[in-house]
Amino acid sequence: MMDWLTQSCPEPCAQSTKLAMQRQQQLTKPPGSLGELETIAIRFAGWQGNEIPTLQKVGVRIFAGDHGVCAQGVSAYPREVTSQMISNFLTGGAAISVLSQAHDADFAVVNMGTVEPTPPAEKLVNINIAPGTLDFSREQAMSEDNTFSALTTGAKLAEQLDCDLFIAGEMGIGNTSSASAITAALLNIPPAQTVGRGTGIDGETLQRKCRVIETALALHAAQLESPIGILRCVGGLEIAGMCGAYIKSAQRGIPILLDGFISSAAALLAVSINPGVKPWLMAGHLSVEPAHATLLNALSQKPLLSLGMRLGEGSGAAVALSVVRSALLLHSNMATFSEAAVSGSVDAIPEQPEL
Amino acid sequence: MMDWLTQSCPEPCAQSTKLAMQRQQQLTKPPGSLGELETIAIRFAGWQGNEIPTLQKVGVRIFAGDHGVCAQGVSAYPREVTSQMISNFLTGGAAISVLSQAHDADFAVVNMGTVEPTPPAEKLVNINIAPGTLDFSREQAMSEDNTFSALTTGAKLAEQLDCDLFIAGEMGIGNTSSASAITAALLNIPPAQTVGRGTGIDGETLQRKCRVIETALALHAAQLESPIGILRCVGGLEIAGMCGAYIKSAQRGIPILLDGFISSAAALLAVSINPGVKPWLMAGHLSVEPAHATLLNALSQKPLLSLGMRLGEGSGAAVALSVVRSALLLHSNMATFSEAAVSGSVDAIPEQPEL
Repeated sequence: MMDWLTQSCPEPCAQSTKLAMQRQQQLTKPPGSLGELETIAIRFAGWQGNEIPTLQKVGVRIFAGDHGVCAQGVSAYPREVTSQMISNFLTGGAAISVLSQAHDADFAVVNMGTVEPTPPAEKLVNINIAPGTLDFSREQAMSEDNTFSALTTGAKLAEQLDCDLFIAGEMGIGNTSSASAITAALLNIPPAQTVGRGTGIDGETLQRKCRVIETALALHAAQLESPIGILRCVGGLEIAGMCGAYIKSAQRGIPILLDGFISSAAALLAVSINPGVKPWLMAGHLSVEPAHATLLNALSQKPLLSLGMRLGEGSGAAVALSVVRSALLLHSNMATFSEAAVSGSVDAIPEQPEL
Repeated sequence: MMDWLTQSCPEPCAQSTKLAMQRQQQLTKPPGSLGELETIAIRFAGWQGNEIPTLQKVGVRIFAGDHGVCAQGVSAYPREVTSQMISNFLTGGAAISVLSQAHDADFAVVNMGTVEPTPPAEKLVNINIAPGTLDFSREQAMSEDNTFSALTTGAKLAEQLDCDLFIAGEMGIGNTSSASAITAALLNIPPAQTVGRGTGIDGETLQRKCRVIETALALHAAQLESPIGILRCVGGLEIAGMCGAYIKSAQRGIPILLDGFISSAAALLAVSINPGVKPWLMAGHLSVEPAHATLLNALSQKPLLSLGMRLGEGSGAAVALSVVRSALLLHSNMATFSEAAVSGSVDAIPEQPEL
């Protein structure tokens, strides 16, 4: 039933990658002088199998879910904020709503499971697998059925996307605790190295958060051998949805712009389940959350931005989207040396008309 | 005659800055979670004297000029590239042209003085104070008259701008040599710490470039006590134009988005001449050119982007412009906690209706 999880992902097109690299050498600028913008354009060329890639439509899906571990007092915000923020996403007041609108993105919110139900609305997909997860410091966060159901929901949503780039955001009070536990378990490092202040907790709460995760990892030790086991024991409904969506997106050959800590934890789960996902990832930004750098390192990703953001929702990715757009625009619209009749470097290799 | 150089600049509005800071605390996100984006919006509020600033129009002026020091073999490109690139700017093929068009900026190129004359064109301001500078390793780069003329030209262009944000870009084969000499002289550090590979010179050329600058600084030592003396002896026509434009822009209360190494060297000259310019600067990006970080540090600026760019032309600032736009959009369009009926932090201070 869950065979789809490990089905292979296509590989980016080597020929288009090569052509795009050659094009970058011919544009009217010193070779390499656009830095990471050149890399972005070249990677998109490989993803689209097109020397001159375009970015017509961006798909943004916000996965929301509640976390039972909130009962342990690990967050600065009350749990009802998850469903309140769903309303705020839908009425356009949240950061990701503002940025999605500015980018004319295909935007929707997916309620994977909150304690407070959310009334039907346009752009809201009400799935509600369960009223949040259970408290993972006392029991497994999700049943096996619910875990697979959440993964499959993410995949189905990704299956329906018609876009050139996919951004998954999240909302879930308590979900940095879940992401910290996932990171510690996947990378086999102590929770002290994976916890952070999340929405802005104080030092005492941070210590408690760390102890809660240590307790959870000890409790579930026998189940943490597989990424699915980790997801089930200490994950979240929204994280499972993102993980499933990332796998399906990569399988469909749609590149993924990662957001922050939660998004990258979901991506590391996805890559651990299906290594073919990795070449389809690009990191939008580096979060303030300390273990985000660790996750990006494990994913072999260098973030485009480092702006001290720590909001989640997909907001960091959506800000990075502007940089991606600039990169593709420069790649497609700049003149080549020969088109512009500009002299090349005094020791440059002449342009090669053929490969 | 040159009294305008030291005339005072206004100070950003403290009250609007305070109101914008308070607004950021009330938007539906954990306080501080938008990182540098919050700082950007707050700085614009101070600049515009408006709690909710807007960015309607961006002015982009590209200052071009040739450099006599090219005779010493300090660049990877032949000198005619300066005027060839002016044509490329005007026909839309250069990086800054593509980005300016995408941002619907008020774009023009200013030929401050090239060896090859440039035919009249729309969006080209042909000033041509001199056919490039003289070789600063043998004599003063510019006469006193030409130095003041270039500064005044920059100021006049800035005087005519009708924009909310000013970007000055540059083009001038050899101008990293000039900027390196300026940086070494202004900060009193050895040229070995201020030279870099510019458009992409090899190790041997880099050593020559360093020696050429050392020679020049020794030759002009007696004239390097004032920023104007430094500009005259080792500067460039385009750098003087940018410097004058930065000073006038700050005097008019128009903030400046800095580009890379040359732009920042011009800005440090401007701040050395008139310290009131400093609060009107924002650094767009960190260039690969090694001494750019030194300049930004001297200007107390933290760059928005670090993408490995080293193209100049204003291109780094123009990419950073998207981040600025996102910051202002979030500041103006996000809902407050009370508007969205979202619960605040469990230990948050209640919103203050009054100051």
